[in-house]
This record gives sequence, C-alpha cells and structure tokens, in this order.
Amino acid sequence: MSIKTFDDLFELELRDMLSAEQQLTKALPKMAKKASNAELAEGFQTHLTQTEGQIERLKQVMEMCGFTTRAHTCEAMKGLLKEGDEAMSDIPEGPLLDAMLIADAQKVEHYEIATYGTLIAWAKQLGHDDAIDLLAQNLDEERETDELLTGMAENTVNDEAIAFAAE
Amino acid sequence: MSIKTFDDLFELELRDMLSAEQQLTKALPKMAKKASNAELAEGFQTHLTQTEGQIERLKQVMEMCGFTTRAHTCEAMKGLLKEGDEAMSDIPEGPLLDAMLIADAQKVEHYEIATYGTLIAWAKQLGHDDAIDLLAQNLDEERETDELLTGMAENTVNDEAIAFAAE
Repeated sequence: MSIKTFDDLFELELRDMLSAEQQLTKALPKMAKKASNAELAEGFQTHLTQTEGQIERLKQVMEMCGFTTRAHTCEAMKGLLKEGDEAMSDIPEGPLLDAMLIADAQKVEHYEIATYGTLIAWAKQLGHDDAIDLLAQNLDEERETDELLTGMAENTVNDEAIAFAAE
Repeated sequence: MSIKTFDDLFELELRDMLSAEQQLTKALPKMAKKASNAELAEGFQTHLTQTEGQIERLKQVMEMCGFTTRAHTCEAMKGLLKEGDEAMSDIPEGPLLDAMLIADAQKVEHYEIATYGTLIAWAKQLGHDDAIDLLAQNLDEERETDELLTGMAENTVNDEAIAFAAE
C-alpha cells in the first residue's frame, strides 16, 4: 500500500500487528507442547486464548477506523519465531529448553509492548479515541504475560536449569 | 553448538546478542541518513557510537567467562531490520518515514531490553558476577535510547507527521 498520510501509516502498522498476532497463534501451541514445566505449558496455552482475543480487538479497531482487516506480513515476528524454532530443534526438551522458551517469549512480548505503545501514541495523535481503549487492553495483557514469564523464570525454571546443568 | 548446560545456553545467548548488535551497527548509519528530523538523525548517530561500545562490553563478558567471541546469527534482529528496510524503501523521506523509523527503532530497543534482562538474570543465576555490571550498562543505554525516542516522537515527529498528512 502507498503511504501518503499518517493515517495510512497507522493502518499499515495495525495490519503488521495483526500478522504478528496471527503468526503467534500458530507458534504458541508448539511452544506449549515443548515446555516441560507444567506452569509454563499452561501459561503458553492461556496466552494463546488471550492472543485470539487480541486479534479480535485489532480487527475491531481496523473496522472502526474504516481500514482493511487484511494482515500485512510482519517480518520481525517471522524472525522472532524463527529463533524460537531454532531453539526447539537444537535444545533437547527439559529445563534448558524451558529457560530458552521463556527468553524467546519475553522477546516476543517486548516486541508487542513496543508496537502497542506506538499504536496507542499514534491513535491519540490521530484522534482515533475509540481505538485507544482496545489497544490499551492488548498492551496490558502483553505486559502481564511478560511479568508472569519473569516470575516463572525466577521462581522455578532457572533453578531447574542450574540443577540440570549440575547433573 | 551443542547445548548441554545452562552455561552453554548463556554463551549462545551472548553470541546471539553480539550478532544483533553487530547487525545494528550496519543499519544505524542508513537510518541516520534517511531521517529528515535533525535530532533523530543525530540520535541514530549517537546510538551507533553507543552500540560499538556495547559490542566491546559483550566481548569482554564473553572473554571473562571463557567463551568464544564468535557471533551466532540473530534471526530476530534480521527480521526487525528487514522491517526497517521495507519502511525505508516504501515510504518517502519526510515526517512519515521519521515516525516509522522511530517505531522500528523502539522495537529494536525493546528486543535488546528483553535480551539484556534475560542475560543479567542468567549471569546472576550462574554466578558470573563480573558480567552483571557490564550487561547492566548496556541495558541502561538501551532503556535511555528508548526513552529518548519516545520523547522525540511526542515532542516533534508525530506533530510533523500530522501536519504533513494535512497538507
């Protein structure tokens, strides 16, 4: 699409984020399956349900603004998930893969936190007031997921990884 | 490399981050050249100098821990920078490209914030105490850059993008 106005840019960024979230719904079930720690596996499943809701909110925002709801391939998410795929094929299942999956998932969450931050700032600037609340709900969920992952790493997974390494 | 211990995972993550920072040193001069806002162009130049210093700190950490200082291609940064390249070829130079460059740069900064966060947590867990301070210096610089970019977007670039769109 040709970018002539700030609104065009906002539309493109929403389409990119839609692609990012859609790609993530395909990766999360695989990550849940590969996680050995039960709490982590459950966390990925919960975030899958959340991500499906986030996709609906994104589409609502796009419709509200009169934009297409067609995704635009997000190259950054492709790269982020390729890194996760590499980990899942190179590291055997167990505490070390769990530690790596948390690290990779937190990179994904931070990518999304940055992008929702931009989208909210742009929505404010462009006067798309209805969009702000929906985007802020998505941002809050990403922040919460990031904190949950930090907690799991600090409370159990990193200890398991150290113990494993000492075997 | 074969991952058998938590220390192996730490080494791999450091090699990945070294690749990420090295890729960024190649992208930043192009971003500085494409930025129309003088403060933004200068900000990218400043961050290039910072990034070169961060690479040195990463190599120090790797030597300190007895690891190789050979980078391991970071696929996530490849994807993040591909997105920036797309923007630079699709959006004409001016306020809209500046707004997009800030958004893309903040995604890169958040990627780095997440990764340094992980590296510091792992260094603590593994008892690599000497590494923590060097990694924390890199993390602080990434956070500071992210805040500077937010400031530029809020104080000037987004206003310029709106004004441009209204022409």
